[in-house]
Amino acid sequence: MIVEIVSVGTELLMGQVANTDAQYIASRISPLGCRVLYHSTVGDNPERLRELALTALGRADAVIFTGGLGPTRDDLTKETVAAALGLACVPDDAEILRLRERCHSFGREPVPEELKQACFPPRSIILPNRNGTAPGCVMEKGGKTAILLPGPPRELEPMVDESVLPYLEKRCGYRLYSREVRLLGMGESQASHLLRELIDAQSNPTVAPYIKPGEVTFRVTARCADEAEGKALCEPVLRSIRETLGDCVYTTEGESIAELVVRLLKERGQTVSTAESLTGGLLADRIVSVPGSSAVFREGFVTYSDDAKIRLLGVREDTIRKHTAVSAETAREMAEGLLARTGADYALATTGYAGPDGADVGLVYAALACREGTRVLPFRFSGERNLIRLRSAQAALDLLRRKLCT
Amino acid sequence: MIVEIVSVGTELLMGQVANTDAQYIASRISPLGCRVLYHSTVGDNPERLRELALTALGRADAVIFTGGLGPTRDDLTKETVAAALGLACVPDDAEILRLRERCHSFGREPVPEELKQACFPPRSIILPNRNGTAPGCVMEKGGKTAILLPGPPRELEPMVDESVLPYLEKRCGYRLYSREVRLLGMGESQASHLLRELIDAQSNPTVAPYIKPGEVTFRVTARCADEAEGKALCEPVLRSIRETLGDCVYTTEGESIAELVVRLLKERGQTVSTAESLTGGLLADRIVSVPGSSAVFREGFVTYSDDAKIRLLGVREDTIRKHTAVSAETAREMAEGLLARTGADYALATTGYAGPDGADVGLVYAALACREGTRVLPFRFSGERNLIRLRSAQAALDLLRRKLCT
Repeated sequence: MIVEIVSVGTELLMGQVANTDAQYIASRISPLGCRVLYHSTVGDNPERLRELALTALGRADAVIFTGGLGPTRDDLTKETVAAALGLACVPDDAEILRLRERCHSFGREPVPEELKQACFPPRSIILPNRNGTAPGCVMEKGGKTAILLPGPPRELEPMVDESVLPYLEKRCGYRLYSREVRLLGMGESQASHLLRELIDAQSNPTVAPYIKPGEVTFRVTARCADEAEGKALCEPVLRSIRETLGDCVYTTEGESIAELVVRLLKERGQTVSTAESLTGGLLADRIVSVPGSSAVFREGFVTYSDDAKIRLLGVREDTIRKHTAVSAETAREMAEGLLARTGADYALATTGYAGPDGADVGLVYAALACREGTRVLPFRFSGERNLIRLRSAQAALDLLRRKLCT
Repeated sequence: MIVEIVSVGTELLMGQVANTDAQYIASRISPLGCRVLYHSTVGDNPERLRELALTALGRADAVIFTGGLGPTRDDLTKETVAAALGLACVPDDAEILRLRERCHSFGREPVPEELKQACFPPRSIILPNRNGTAPGCVMEKGGKTAILLPGPPRELEPMVDESVLPYLEKRCGYRLYSREVRLLGMGESQASHLLRELIDAQSNPTVAPYIKPGEVTFRVTARCADEAEGKALCEPVLRSIRETLGDCVYTTEGESIAELVVRLLKERGQTVSTAESLTGGLLADRIVSVPGSSAVFREGFVTYSDDAKIRLLGVREDTIRKHTAVSAETAREMAEGLLARTGADYALATTGYAGPDGADVGLVYAALACREGTRVLPFRFSGERNLIRLRSAQAALDLLRRKLCT
């Protein structure tokens, strides 16, 4: 099935907002076997939109339009696309009723502009909008399909997942099943290199890298008849990725490293504390960002100055003088001092050079202390200041993950 | 001048990467008076690219192509666009020399695929690539212009700023001058409402909102002959925005709130400490993310549990029992205890409910203590857990900013 995506909105043409809709749609429908050959963006201009709609409907089986479904005079997508297909929009009784009810709940009647949001070509499939007032719709005529979606991502994305994918799955005779493989401790190029034969050999499921700041993710997506078949198709590929990349794979269940660490600690009824130099609160922040983290995290220290490391954590002045604050020795004393002072089960510490100035930018030590002993690891991270800091926080969490998983 | 943007890359069509290039280019060239009427994306397919290039060159004065300039067989943009203009690519002596020198510095000869990166139609303007190996270029023929840029944003963005804008400025007879107005303490809809007449009335400079997580920004962009004229055009608009929005405007100089606060503290030789409950390290992280922050920030506490608030900051048990940990009283004692314990000039504290579960999600207190006294402010933030946490950290920084600016 050949599909095109047409985005409508002058704000997109001017670059005022990023066109994340087109990417979202393409990434969701491609694994279904839909071949997307063009994305186009056009402004709120009925002549140019009409011409583009005719071109796109002429060369594709289905065209997905985004934007221009609102109540203002600029919002012309539905009327223009319907006209290009030779259809006219008429009031839909159920939608008119829904609109009236919504307005009445605010103690008012619908204004005329709003009524057009309740008008569709007869026999359209109307797609409910969970997060907004403009429903989407599917129009079919003469073997051609137009799918119209609202522009705001928080309205469009659930509509794609809940309405468009099931519609296309039915049309294509397939459904999709996806899993994410998330890595820490290995770069994207090395991981892609190790997986290149697997990536090239796979057509179902597909294996594709997604780069997120501070970590590497691969998405495994199967085209399947049902979830059981999807699982059966993905499992051997997930297993072979795990075998190739070893314990750098920290999850295939979609958790972040912070979520995973918080969950593992919760399961054991254990706690962690943090002592941070270069990460400066970011490590604690990653933990606290997880709902329910109060069960496993009670306190942390940001000891950015040498004096704070000495006073709050008990690092010896002599250690800093001899080895500097960025050393395995200082990292060890930070973690051990933290463990002694907080009574947590695990104490994580970071120290390093985040830059931008100075020698040895990217040299980082992470330390984990617990009753059984202390482990200190050195890292050499590249990137700008805050990417080095993010990678350091991730590395510290990964140090704890590896401890909890052995 | 009518401009179109054509992005080339199958990974864009599949949604594997976001097309940030098109947005970047459009946002940079629109204020120059260039009218962008279409963005299109096509895969690494020479027939479809050729057809799209002919269509775009047929209806626009200039077409900006992105992607497909690399050394692989898939990279066909330059050859295809040149052919569409009736031009042929031939080796450019200076570029061949540059390529040889670069390869020799790695102790090898160029491979044949690399040589095509040094081939251009005769009389092209070659655009240097500061962050990669593929130069961009400008081809002109029969009143039509094709501008070819590499796809990776870190190669494309400096090339747009350093080469494409000056080229278009010369063609358009204008240049651009931009300023950002950044706000805290007022939402986007209220600010846009207050500025709506100004926004509608302005055509040069233009005023456009940019939403960033946790704050609101307006960009003021003037089309001008030179920087002095740009400044003169922008200043009255900046002044009138400041008058309308008052002290919610924290800068028109492009600094983040954390950068501003660090700069102001540095200028005074003063320091700040942090005590965080719901922000959980994020407030310290915002400060430490600023290069050179070690001059003004030495330590912080993440006191997520009640016990940590009592033990590390000296909050009275009685206060928490009577008023709960999320109260003006607790926030005050956190800040005052922190001030007494650290010897910093300013002590910032946060406490609140980040959710997702529980009553009163979004209720937050920020407190600032200094020798002259303590100020506590209540906030009601909406959004999900980590947006509430970000807004709380921003609000605490803003509390300090307002103190330092009075």
